[in-house]
Amino acid sequence: MPRYAIGLDYGTNSVRSLLVNAANGREVGTSVWNYEHGTEGVILSSDPNLARQHPADYLKGGEIVIKRALSQAKRKIRGFSPDQVIGIGVDTTGSTPLPVDEDGQPLAFKRQFARDPAAMARLWKDHTGVAEAEEITALAERLRPHYLAKCGGTYSSEWFFSKVLHCIRTSPKVFDAAYTWVEIADWIPAALTDTLDPDGLTVGVCAAGHKAMYNDAWGGYPDKRFLGRLHPKLAQLRDRLQDKAYNIEKAVGGLSKEWAKRTGLPEGIPVAVGAFDAHLGAVGAGIKPGTLVKIIGTSTCDMMVAPLGKDLPDIPGLCGIVPESILPRYYGLEAGQSAVGDIFNWFVNYVEPGGERMGSHEALTREAAKLKPGESGLLALDWNNGNRTILVDQRLTGMLLGQTLYTRPGEIYRALIEATAFGALTIINRFEEYGVKVGQVVNCGGIAEKNPLVMQIYADVTGRPMKISRSAQTPALGAAMAGAVVAGREAGGYPGFSAAQKAMSGLKAKVYTPDRKAQGVYAELYALYSQLHDAFGTEKWEGKLFNVMKDLLAIRGKVRK
Amino acid sequence: MPRYAIGLDYGTNSVRSLLVNAANGREVGTSVWNYEHGTEGVILSSDPNLARQHPADYLKGGEIVIKRALSQAKRKIRGFSPDQVIGIGVDTTGSTPLPVDEDGQPLAFKRQFARDPAAMARLWKDHTGVAEAEEITALAERLRPHYLAKCGGTYSSEWFFSKVLHCIRTSPKVFDAAYTWVEIADWIPAALTDTLDPDGLTVGVCAAGHKAMYNDAWGGYPDKRFLGRLHPKLAQLRDRLQDKAYNIEKAVGGLSKEWAKRTGLPEGIPVAVGAFDAHLGAVGAGIKPGTLVKIIGTSTCDMMVAPLGKDLPDIPGLCGIVPESILPRYYGLEAGQSAVGDIFNWFVNYVEPGGERMGSHEALTREAAKLKPGESGLLALDWNNGNRTILVDQRLTGMLLGQTLYTRPGEIYRALIEATAFGALTIINRFEEYGVKVGQVVNCGGIAEKNPLVMQIYADVTGRPMKISRSAQTPALGAAMAGAVVAGREAGGYPGFSAAQKAMSGLKAKVYTPDRKAQGVYAELYALYSQLHDAFGTEKWEGKLFNVMKDLLAIRGKVRK
Repeated sequence: MPRYAIGLDYGTNSVRSLLVNAANGREVGTSVWNYEHGTEGVILSSDPNLARQHPADYLKGGEIVIKRALSQAKRKIRGFSPDQVIGIGVDTTGSTPLPVDEDGQPLAFKRQFARDPAAMARLWKDHTGVAEAEEITALAERLRPHYLAKCGGTYSSEWFFSKVLHCIRTSPKVFDAAYTWVEIADWIPAALTDTLDPDGLTVGVCAAGHKAMYNDAWGGYPDKRFLGRLHPKLAQLRDRLQDKAYNIEKAVGGLSKEWAKRTGLPEGIPVAVGAFDAHLGAVGAGIKPGTLVKIIGTSTCDMMVAPLGKDLPDIPGLCGIVPESILPRYYGLEAGQSAVGDIFNWFVNYVEPGGERMGSHEALTREAAKLKPGESGLLALDWNNGNRTILVDQRLTGMLLGQTLYTRPGEIYRALIEATAFGALTIINRFEEYGVKVGQVVNCGGIAEKNPLVMQIYADVTGRPMKISRSAQTPALGAAMAGAVVAGREAGGYPGFSAAQKAMSGLKAKVYTPDRKAQGVYAELYALYSQLHDAFGTEKWEGKLFNVMKDLLAIRGKVRK
Repeated sequence: MPRYAIGLDYGTNSVRSLLVNAANGREVGTSVWNYEHGTEGVILSSDPNLARQHPADYLKGGEIVIKRALSQAKRKIRGFSPDQVIGIGVDTTGSTPLPVDEDGQPLAFKRQFARDPAAMARLWKDHTGVAEAEEITALAERLRPHYLAKCGGTYSSEWFFSKVLHCIRTSPKVFDAAYTWVEIADWIPAALTDTLDPDGLTVGVCAAGHKAMYNDAWGGYPDKRFLGRLHPKLAQLRDRLQDKAYNIEKAVGGLSKEWAKRTGLPEGIPVAVGAFDAHLGAVGAGIKPGTLVKIIGTSTCDMMVAPLGKDLPDIPGLCGIVPESILPRYYGLEAGQSAVGDIFNWFVNYVEPGGERMGSHEALTREAAKLKPGESGLLALDWNNGNRTILVDQRLTGMLLGQTLYTRPGEIYRALIEATAFGALTIINRFEEYGVKVGQVVNCGGIAEKNPLVMQIYADVTGRPMKISRSAQTPALGAAMAGAVVAGREAGGYPGFSAAQKAMSGLKAKVYTPDRKAQGVYAELYALYSQLHDAFGTEKWEGKLFNVMKDLLAIRGKVRK
């Protein structure tokens, strides 16, 4: 009798369920539910930096998508029963911390906070804590440089302590009403297993390690004295954070009676420790040593793993190097580009809104595909949303160079694609410069699946074959794998991720291989890209142009006031 | 009884007549005729560098527009008679040289050459002689650096000898069939006055000085030995060029019997020495010492004059410093931007073709006008068509920097306007650095008249009031003034240009004055513009980025082959 596992993938606008056959990863049921609160699930305000979510959406959405996936399977598979489901995994966006009370219940569920954005989950892309991030970075540079060394040298406004500190500073009522703060990657599995008690919470090392400076090497979360220097209340909070964070091999607990009733799933089936979408996406794409998994969406995550035992140097510019954040017994290495699909969307939707015929992604891709590498004379920097890796600098902006009076939109579109490819190569080079060999590249996400031109340009620019993950839903698949692993071999699951990946994940047959001639031209263009990259992004040339983008932003800030 | 003068303005696509009252410059008749040959008057080929004109258009068009202007005046002014016209002036594009036979007749009028582009007039924007221009520049750098010092340090592919040498190299049959080459600025007045004999031709110092390295200081045109080093046939041609070139105070001759018959004008009225449109445009706009006249169209010409007696240094980067090329007894100083309106047109027509509602000049100007200086965070370089002044470098390209995912077309449009304003300021600064004080700025051309936002930005960026010429047709008006001056005081004209300008030209009441706050922000932005300008356009910083645009063009050239 076949066994099944469920992956729940909590995204920015919706939650998705994926019910797969544990033997081979075949998808037998899936459903997406759009969050009800805010604008497409995101609570906004006049402050463009603010992006929040209401936690009620997580519970309502989880129940709906599980039930729908089960119904689908019942219709599709003769004799299917929810009793054949052996485990659940959960992936979420992050860092998305949520203030909760002594019982682990979100403040947002209380009447007095039900409409207060400060009491909501602070979505990954909430940048209200920019000043706090700078403060944390500055203090850590002075007192705890080793904290920063594991997260690329800069603590981001998107991360846990920036957000919590911002709440202390700007919404003290909310902060004081909260007992502690929980990442939704931890809170959702706890809710499913009725283990919400904040003092006994099981937290994942993915969120803690990548976003909250957790590391066993220095005793877990940042020390109380350091946090106290930022704010006394942060030191108090430290006492309520867990001592230990776990990898995804561990079960948070068994599905609660209530959730068994709500969904029809068997009570007690294990729910794995939660992790971020990109990390479980990498698992779902078959990540292993030597494999770079690129998750290409509006932005990218570039993930690798390296064996724990081996001495791994700090790699400057990486978003994080966290033991077991992706796979147990491996370092999880996370890099990324701040905008990829978002840049193409920006150009199509706002700059070149020529409509279906000439201004759609399809039409522009068609025009771009007619060009040879180097033919447009254009070169762009892919920094419209800053640079995450390797410069770790939000105060960088986009650039287009080489335009003449004859430059056409298809040429610009191609230059933007090429710019993101150059950015991708810069990340690969950084991994390899520090001894993390990139043996193969596996791509996931809509752009990887739907745009052959992008993949071919990536192959030509990087000089490496571009492979595509077989599943279109790698985060949810990775989460389902975690469900199968925590279920264990005896229940019909797996003893570990290596076995689970071998059985449940795979690659598409189509591989994009580099064209030698294009590769040669791109090598020349990449040398020029690197010149611009270093001129505007580093202080290499005595900082000759390092100030330009930053000064423009400073002037803009001053003028807008 | 009032007296009238006619200005004939030979443009790229059409010829215009302007019949004005000599007493006050009031326009009493005007007409435009589009050339019949080629595409909108320009003969093109598969080579994008090629742009030619058929000289038959000059004669047919001249006759038509004169007759129409006279008819208009007859309908408009009671008792008007063509006999009241006292003189004619001619302005043309240039350098636009034309191969002619022993009688001064264009080879294009002969059957065997009637359809041969090589026998046509080589329009100013014909760039087929790029290689020859580089050759001439290189040789002059070694042997005759003083030739280059007067034309900005680089001999352009748009100029006389580049075009003639290119013909020697690529169309020897045409070259050998020609007796000599004549600028159309000289040929048209000669045709009107039946003084076409090449050995007795009256040539203007404007074309000769700005485009053919003519200077009385070294005996007129370049010496035979220098030309011989380029090609022996160029040395032969030297013998057929005139010894002396004249300013516009001189009459080429009287209107011929034939042309009097063709047009109805009185036989024998004087026709002034021809000059380029920008130069006579400056005259029509009231140029005098301390007044910068900006003729803003697809590109700009920035014209000044300085008294001949005073010692004037060579000003690096100016297109030309030529005695009497604009006004008699003054140096004519010519600078310019390679693209201004063309950049706006490029963006509207090709990059942001959102249609009337959102993608027209009007709609984008509306959006751009809502922004404060510095608010977009954008900065552009106005080099989509290279940089004429002060870098004199065709191998420069455009650049846009500072874009985010929120950048909108109106912001880009404003950044492009600002970039051209920064380019304009760079020219003003160059004049002043070399002691040519800019006391006032007078603008001409459609953009100056129709786009208050552009003019306000120019005022704010340069920190100077922007004034607008009263006449919308300054080149034709300046030509008519030349007609009135060569007619002389006794005929109802003027003894010189100062008197003619005082009577016939003027400014509009509307003056755009700098806003102090905007000026402050633009000073900061201009400092950043200058950083980019020097980084990409000069070798100032050990040429750190000087190669980028040039390398991109080189790669493009290689790839396109």
